Amino acid sequence: MKKVGVILAGCGVYDGSEIHEAVLTLLYLDQAGAEIHCFAPDKDQLHVVNHLTGQPVEGDKRNVLVESARIARGEIRPLSDMKLDQLDAVIFPGGFGAAKNLCTFAVDGPACEIDPHVIGVIADAIAKKKTIGAICISPVVVARALKDSGASPELTIGQDPGTNEALTALRAKPVNAKVDDIVVDQKHKIVTTPAYMLGPRISNVAAGIEKLVMKVLEIA
Amino acid sequence: MKKVGVILAGCGVYDGSEIHEAVLTLLYLDQAGAEIHCFAPDKDQLHVVNHLTGQPVEGDKRNVLVESARIARGEIRPLSDMKLDQLDAVIFPGGFGAAKNLCTFAVDGPACEIDPHVIGVIADAIAKKKTIGAICISPVVVARALKDSGASPELTIGQDPGTNEALTALRAKPVNAKVDDIVVDQKHKIVTTPAYMLGPRISNVAAGIEKLVMKVLEIA
Repeated sequence: MKKVGVILAGCGVYDGSEIHEAVLTLLYLDQAGAEIHCFAPDKDQLHVVNHLTGQPVEGDKRNVLVESARIARGEIRPLSDMKLDQLDAVIFPGGFGAAKNLCTFAVDGPACEIDPHVIGVIADAIAKKKTIGAICISPVVVARALKDSGASPELTIGQDPGTNEALTALRAKPVNAKVDDIVVDQKHKIVTTPAYMLGPRISNVAAGIEKLVMKVLEIA
Repeated sequence: MKKVGVILAGCGVYDGSEIHEAVLTLLYLDQAGAEIHCFAPDKDQLHVVNHLTGQPVEGDKRNVLVESARIARGEIRPLSDMKLDQLDAVIFPGGFGAAKNLCTFAVDGPACEIDPHVIGVIADAIAKKKTIGAICISPVVVARALKDSGASPELTIGQDPGTNEALTALRAKPVNAKVDDIVVDQKHKIVTTPAYMLGPRISNVAAGIEKLVMKVLEIA
């Protein structure tokens, strides 16, 4: 039984993990018989967005780990507790939370900072030849983590020219893909899929995420 | 193409809609080609629960519609705007939100009150022979809505003796079922499945919800 860490970044597409992507990741991992361990950084979200209006809520504060626990039904631990030696792979679902709470890409672009625990997990995964799955916008987190390592991984975020440019600035190699495609970097054991970077429907996103999960488990 | 209303009750198993159940409902509806319309009551949640500790958060307030919008990616309207004549069926995912925000069953048991828009939708659905799907604990909402109608629907909430007693007190007929079973009340066109009333795994829950969605679309 493969053991997989799922790294969440809050609960909701505009300020946290994209909920459909996170749940579909858990679904396909469980259907394949993998052992799932959820983690999230224990810190405040960049901000809170009202998902009905799309507007930030002034003065509201939420914790990334506490909100991620909604998706994980309470079964989640701080990312600082992750022991990568006990896992075969890690998967990052997408959503703005990946680009707001795991790194600051949504605000700062390729010059973004990255959470110290997140960069630690990704660098460690590469060093120990663990498999990494990254969904939707999350490949920018992986690219940022590996920017100064000389790794230059092949990644997809779909087909958005601006984000592809940013990936190139982060010394990654962007590959265009359709929503139900995966891109596999065999050398670095990284699997990516566009999900809601393209969408538009949950069934489209599900097709790509199912392929990603199966490939992650195959090469992990 | 069948048109289905999905009625949410917040975002998170302990104070809102159970997220996995809600997302799986959307997934299987979309895979089957149904047109999905999400709704939720526009009012404060009963309370806010920290999903990491399981404890209520004193002084925190969240709105059911605004939090439900996280699951619906912003594509959701107030339940008071629902026009049942334009839909073929309605589905209620579970989670404590169904028993805290749609009715007060979690607090008051069979003597619970029910949201006026929710009772309106369910009574109207029965009168107009629309199909109703209810997942997990949501059958108690349906039973409460129909309590004084003489309908006595056959429903499942799994196998919990206490909740079965409460259903009987609400003049419904509880039927024991396994997690991947559905119970179909042909006369009232109501389909139910236990989901996380039994669980324990997301793949178990998914099997029952997929059957429920297919049956709802078949008889709608």
